[in-house]
Amino acid sequence: MQDRIPEPVTPSVRVLMGPGPSDVPPSVLEALARPTIGHLDPEFLAVMDDVRSMLRTLFGTTNALTIPMSGTGSAGMETCLVNLIEPGDRVVVGVNGVFGMRMVDVARRCGADVVPVEKAWGQPFHPDDFSGVQGSAAKLLCLVQAETSTGAWTDLTGFRSVADNMGALLLVDAVTSLGGKPVDLDRHGVDAVYSGTQKCLSCPPGLAPISFSERAGSVLESRKTPVQSWYLDLTMIGRYWGAERAYHHTAPINLVYALHQALRLALLEGLDNRYARHALHGSALVAGLEAMGLQLPVSADARMPQLTVVAAPAGVDEASIRRRLLSTHGIEIGGGLGVFKGKVWRIGLMGAAATRRNVTLCLSGLTQALRAEGFAAAGDGVEAAAGVYRSQQ
Amino acid sequence: MQDRIPEPVTPSVRVLMGPGPSDVPPSVLEALARPTIGHLDPEFLAVMDDVRSMLRTLFGTTNALTIPMSGTGSAGMETCLVNLIEPGDRVVVGVNGVFGMRMVDVARRCGADVVPVEKAWGQPFHPDDFSGVQGSAAKLLCLVQAETSTGAWTDLTGFRSVADNMGALLLVDAVTSLGGKPVDLDRHGVDAVYSGTQKCLSCPPGLAPISFSERAGSVLESRKTPVQSWYLDLTMIGRYWGAERAYHHTAPINLVYALHQALRLALLEGLDNRYARHALHGSALVAGLEAMGLQLPVSADARMPQLTVVAAPAGVDEASIRRRLLSTHGIEIGGGLGVFKGKVWRIGLMGAAATRRNVTLCLSGLTQALRAEGFAAAGDGVEAAAGVYRSQQ
Repeated sequence: MQDRIPEPVTPSVRVLMGPGPSDVPPSVLEALARPTIGHLDPEFLAVMDDVRSMLRTLFGTTNALTIPMSGTGSAGMETCLVNLIEPGDRVVVGVNGVFGMRMVDVARRCGADVVPVEKAWGQPFHPDDFSGVQGSAAKLLCLVQAETSTGAWTDLTGFRSVADNMGALLLVDAVTSLGGKPVDLDRHGVDAVYSGTQKCLSCPPGLAPISFSERAGSVLESRKTPVQSWYLDLTMIGRYWGAERAYHHTAPINLVYALHQALRLALLEGLDNRYARHALHGSALVAGLEAMGLQLPVSADARMPQLTVVAAPAGVDEASIRRRLLSTHGIEIGGGLGVFKGKVWRIGLMGAAATRRNVTLCLSGLTQALRAEGFAAAGDGVEAAAGVYRSQQ
Repeated sequence: MQDRIPEPVTPSVRVLMGPGPSDVPPSVLEALARPTIGHLDPEFLAVMDDVRSMLRTLFGTTNALTIPMSGTGSAGMETCLVNLIEPGDRVVVGVNGVFGMRMVDVARRCGADVVPVEKAWGQPFHPDDFSGVQGSAAKLLCLVQAETSTGAWTDLTGFRSVADNMGALLLVDAVTSLGGKPVDLDRHGVDAVYSGTQKCLSCPPGLAPISFSERAGSVLESRKTPVQSWYLDLTMIGRYWGAERAYHHTAPINLVYALHQALRLALLEGLDNRYARHALHGSALVAGLEAMGLQLPVSADARMPQLTVVAAPAGVDEASIRRRLLSTHGIEIGGGLGVFKGKVWRIGLMGAAATRRNVTLCLSGLTQALRAEGFAAAGDGVEAAAGVYRSQQ
């Protein structure tokens, strides 16, 4: 049935400025290609310990249960929900984009009584938004810190009290935040968090860092029903990553090497420097897009530098612009999802991709692509971005 | 909280002769380290198509729904079970080792009424073993083709009729078989199968190839309840890997590159050649171990060349022998699991690791390690293996 053997994979070098994956630094790809060793090899166990320690620093937590799950970010979401929910539990979810919707879907599959609290796409949540649902107790209050579908950033300040008023654990999606803006788990009193590696950590996709507070760990340990997923069952996986080293499943060894190096790069840069770098390039990109006369659906106080969402101008085919950027410059930017499908672009400046070179290239390439589709920018985006860089020197 | 930044990962080069992961060829590691591109990039979609086509050849099937899941082999097991089981379904599982036990555990978490059919560890199943449970209808009949915990090979011949007698789908664990011995899905009438990449495909761990027959696809499409796992829901994932290319989750791009190359290597070698190579080196290893006076718990007609299980002699600390092999020669072999814990070694000759060099090295290293622990081999294992090679020339 195999009529030919395919040629080897020789992917083009892209500039990854979508909502992830982001550009992966050479040293991370090198780490990925180191020799595979066994998942119970003493050398690998030492790598696991380093990864856990560095993840704690990135998350801003001392949580013992901090590990990368063997799946992508969505597996991290499912890990948090299947381990903490038992059938019938009341779960309150803030929904202002695709990933809040996904939490609702996953929580329902766990048998939860889900209470979605909705807000317009592109708007961040504030603690007041939950005043209507604080009357009844809940098991979980779930929020998306960085909504990857809209680019809206929800400041977690004040949500610990909201959760406390419901007797709930506070669960946060930090997929697009980790490594790009402070997540600050312990400062915000977050009980459970999940993230991905292919966003602001600039590591290939395939692992989902998660972290559980002691309180979340107690809820896990006192479950009355088994976790519905064997693969994501933290009561068993914790024994592999913890002191027992009990075999559960074969960890994705080489991806763990890559994550180790990606975390090293973040710490070598310094987290404050890294966040400042994202902020600088994000503000330059925004200045450029606004100078071109493009509209940003997220208000200035709710934007995040690592992901900027821009409305496609009326009459412009957004997919055609993306195809042009890819074919002429090898630049990948993202299209919209859900309500925003066909209406916006999502431009990422994540991890290693957050550079002045990428800002200039993207604004210049976008200007050309728009012109080719008959849309003339109102002003010079590249020059406006350059102005931001000059003002910061 | 980060008092030091860890040094880069520099794993030792091991000889991986355990139950997986196995040695990864240089060209597969090189493919792994190719530049990351987007999961919706047209170049990546072409890689996906190639991978699906090559997986079909390896599995021996024309099944349209043949894809690598974004998790390790156990995620493949869970994928098959969560997608096919609805609460209350009767599921018959052959249990003759850890992985049959795991299927029972996962199926129960799906709400199945599980009927385990047990057999002694190290024994393969025969169709007659299920005569007692064929009276009632069942949704699934589950078997482990290559039981990684014992090294027992179950020949699938005749099980299609057993499944038909129960009106059941036939579900098979091919984690340790794929690429080492023919799986022959379509010839055996298998409806659902899962495997892993880190065994006889000699690819790093992190992906789980699965395949569903049309019949299994119909059962999936006519479910009355949602699949309990969002991450593993094939009704959604099939739309990403299929013609629609609908976004579900970010695929582990670089692991897919590696799998592509690992599958190419299998096809370039030729599947018949590959199976013959495993058979040759497996028989040489067995001849060597038997010449040394060691006992093999699996009878000759139920062994598989890619994984040989050997009893540790009385009075020998099996873990100490494994530590010696690792520290003196960098050879990894596996210990026992479950009933066999502390009692056996599991020696893999999987994929790229199935070589005469590894057979000689393992027998020689094991002889030395046993001597150091006070056990004198009955005969010369290396010479016995050499005899097998001479006889095959």
